Amino acid sequence: MVDARSWGARDAAVVWHGFTQMASYLDNEPVIVEAADGRELIDVEGRRYLDAISSLWVTTLGHRVPELDAALRAQIDRVAHSTLLGNGNRVVVELAEALARVVPVDQPHFLFASDGAAAVEQALKIAFQYWANLGVSGRTGYLALGHAYHGDTVGSLSLGAGGFGTDLFDPLRFGRSGPAGGSRVVRAPGYDDPAALSTAAALVDEHGPALAAVVLEPLVQGAAGMLVADPGAYGPLVEACRRHDVLLVCDEVATGFGRTGTLFASERCGLRPDLMAIGKGLTGGYLAMSATVASDRVHAAFLGPDLSERTFYHGHSYSGNALAAAVALRHLELYEEWDVLTDVRARATTLARRVGERLTPLHAVADVRLCGLMGGVELAPPGEGLRWGRRVCAAAVRRGVLLRPLGDVVVLMPPLTVTDAEVDRIVDTLAAAVGEVAGEDGQAR
Amino acid sequence: MVDARSWGARDAAVVWHGFTQMASYLDNEPVIVEAADGRELIDVEGRRYLDAISSLWVTTLGHRVPELDAALRAQIDRVAHSTLLGNGNRVVVELAEALARVVPVDQPHFLFASDGAAAVEQALKIAFQYWANLGVSGRTGYLALGHAYHGDTVGSLSLGAGGFGTDLFDPLRFGRSGPAGGSRVVRAPGYDDPAALSTAAALVDEHGPALAAVVLEPLVQGAAGMLVADPGAYGPLVEACRRHDVLLVCDEVATGFGRTGTLFASERCGLRPDLMAIGKGLTGGYLAMSATVASDRVHAAFLGPDLSERTFYHGHSYSGNALAAAVALRHLELYEEWDVLTDVRARATTLARRVGERLTPLHAVADVRLCGLMGGVELAPPGEGLRWGRRVCAAAVRRGVLLRPLGDVVVLMPPLTVTDAEVDRIVDTLAAAVGEVAGEDGQAR
Repeated sequence: MVDARSWGARDAAVVWHGFTQMASYLDNEPVIVEAADGRELIDVEGRRYLDAISSLWVTTLGHRVPELDAALRAQIDRVAHSTLLGNGNRVVVELAEALARVVPVDQPHFLFASDGAAAVEQALKIAFQYWANLGVSGRTGYLALGHAYHGDTVGSLSLGAGGFGTDLFDPLRFGRSGPAGGSRVVRAPGYDDPAALSTAAALVDEHGPALAAVVLEPLVQGAAGMLVADPGAYGPLVEACRRHDVLLVCDEVATGFGRTGTLFASERCGLRPDLMAIGKGLTGGYLAMSATVASDRVHAAFLGPDLSERTFYHGHSYSGNALAAAVALRHLELYEEWDVLTDVRARATTLARRVGERLTPLHAVADVRLCGLMGGVELAPPGEGLRWGRRVCAAAVRRGVLLRPLGDVVVLMPPLTVTDAEVDRIVDTLAAAVGEVAGEDGQAR
Repeated sequence: MVDARSWGARDAAVVWHGFTQMASYLDNEPVIVEAADGRELIDVEGRRYLDAISSLWVTTLGHRVPELDAALRAQIDRVAHSTLLGNGNRVVVELAEALARVVPVDQPHFLFASDGAAAVEQALKIAFQYWANLGVSGRTGYLALGHAYHGDTVGSLSLGAGGFGTDLFDPLRFGRSGPAGGSRVVRAPGYDDPAALSTAAALVDEHGPALAAVVLEPLVQGAAGMLVADPGAYGPLVEACRRHDVLLVCDEVATGFGRTGTLFASERCGLRPDLMAIGKGLTGGYLAMSATVASDRVHAAFLGPDLSERTFYHGHSYSGNALAAAVALRHLELYEEWDVLTDVRARATTLARRVGERLTPLHAVADVRLCGLMGGVELAPPGEGLRWGRRVCAAAVRRGVLLRPLGDVVVLMPPLTVTDAEVDRIVDTLAAAVGEVAGEDGQAR
């Protein structure tokens, strides 16, 4: 018998879910997915859910896209994977060439990995070694922002701000205890502070010769609860980096591939980073693939004699996986063929209008932050420990719209091919869910 | 026109290859793979190469295995990916259940990631938080071995020994500079020291209450140049861990899935780790997927109230990717259906005999280290800087056998389904390549 509850129990017995308290996993009525159709996920009992979180921010054009499926099937008939250590793979070359035409990085070079965090790790290590290769000493530090999230591996976690239940790992992080000779992380404010970027610029002026790089999530700090920066405010920071010759690393793992209305958020902010991390949407949400993009200036500093110390001795087994590359290549083509970005901007307008009509007026809503098809609705629970984020999303899931909160911020992150009718459905469902949980507070002010 | 050289040039212009000096990339005549057929890779000009490194240690049953291709195609028709954060996916549950029946871990729980390094990071962070969750303070250190390699992200790199061109990253590593309050890494000898494991046991006795975990590659230190331990020598270390209640973490990313003759190397060593990292062969070499396996004892320490600090706040976007899970599930079934491990042991005998006949007697060979179908042939160049490892492998590649060295150690790592005739061909080709490069030194003593 197919039964969601029995599948849930089997799941909880053997799978450890990330960012999930497993003692409460079943109480929170997880959706056990078996199939998908367009923008809907289908559970083991055949129930359908509109995937309003893009399977945690990765799905771009929807699930089971015929063109992507066809590209994947064609690659299966060639080769699934061959190593990129010292050798190449044709489809990876084609993908890198296609990406090179669209990333906001000068004469870019692509170092592939699989987890987004690994792409950030590569970027931070490349920035670090860049200065060593140039023979410049003392540039061992980083400037990062408050509320920053760059992933969960120790290096990524070191660049990230505290919180998210990660403070206990401080003894593992570089830049926290500040030993002599260790790397230092200078912390600017996050995007909830309107002066974040000007303060960051001043800190670069103050610490310039000690900094290897400035690392930031351009335009939107997603995991922080969708904090949005003024895209016009990056100028002073860029100038300060230029003045002190500090590298700029943009983490576009969450914002990349059209999520904010341009292919990369860096474009809207007028940024041309020296290093960029990409992931999530790179394969349209199909397969694990990430990459670190390096400008030619950075890459050139690693050229030298064979087997010499100038080499970047870092690599992941599935770097440049051919199956993932074939999907990513076709995916990028579809952005042009379908004019995806124009649709994103149109749907973003719909989303903003509908949220403004249905959610902003509610007592139970403290704030709404939207950027393209990436948004957060911050709830205003009347007290502590009420788990409103959790309960509101559960109420939406019961209504057939899959949502997952960041604390009391409900994330709105539909696939980029979402229709106006689906946008309305997501917002209306969220409004109903807020009403159910918040009662009188769910009413308009 | 299809031309390997022009593809190579296009590749070098945009792809940054890991562990590769890009200034020498083209000089080293890379193979640009376009397709595959069984255990052979096919380049853009149609040339065939026997994949004697299993595409950097990941390919198990060969390329384009019809059964794995079929499993992947079937999953494409269901769903490529759905998030495991707070929700589940049926095929991932089935995979975890299948793995649970075969891993040498008590009542195991599986936390999936994509890069092997991320699985190690998860293990080291889980071990760290385990003690915090139990309210035990001071257990912030690790014991790791000399020559250890656990991956390239900062946490994995911290557990790893120096070398591999990574010493410059010491300011980023925990455990190196030893600040007050920071984590410490106690370093035992590597497997080139016959006393490595008894020394490690003594160090656990000395540092026990300060250690969160002992982390090791069971049986073989692969990246160190295939250093092999005595599988009967782990008893004292296990006893010391038990005495001082130190967790044991086995990194089976390289050794897992039959490579050494048993499904996991831990089995041969009589180890039942508290945490285990798996990757590479998990999907048969098809797709990026890794996992951290935790015993029920470890997992139980993370149970608590919803959203509480006992939760493991760590997760990767593509954790539990459904396409990779479908392949991994079918892959594990094939081990039984095909009795793969029996074949591995038979081919390992052939490999050892043939290497003993053809390579061990050569002046140019300093040492041979084999374990199952995982081996290293250490060359004995008459001087420094001769790049014998590189040149011997290039000579083998020109003869149609793809090899890649670790310094002057030529790695032998054929797919597990290799035939006796292919084993002979690999060894004979390597002997001829040594003869070409070493000249008189390539002759038998």
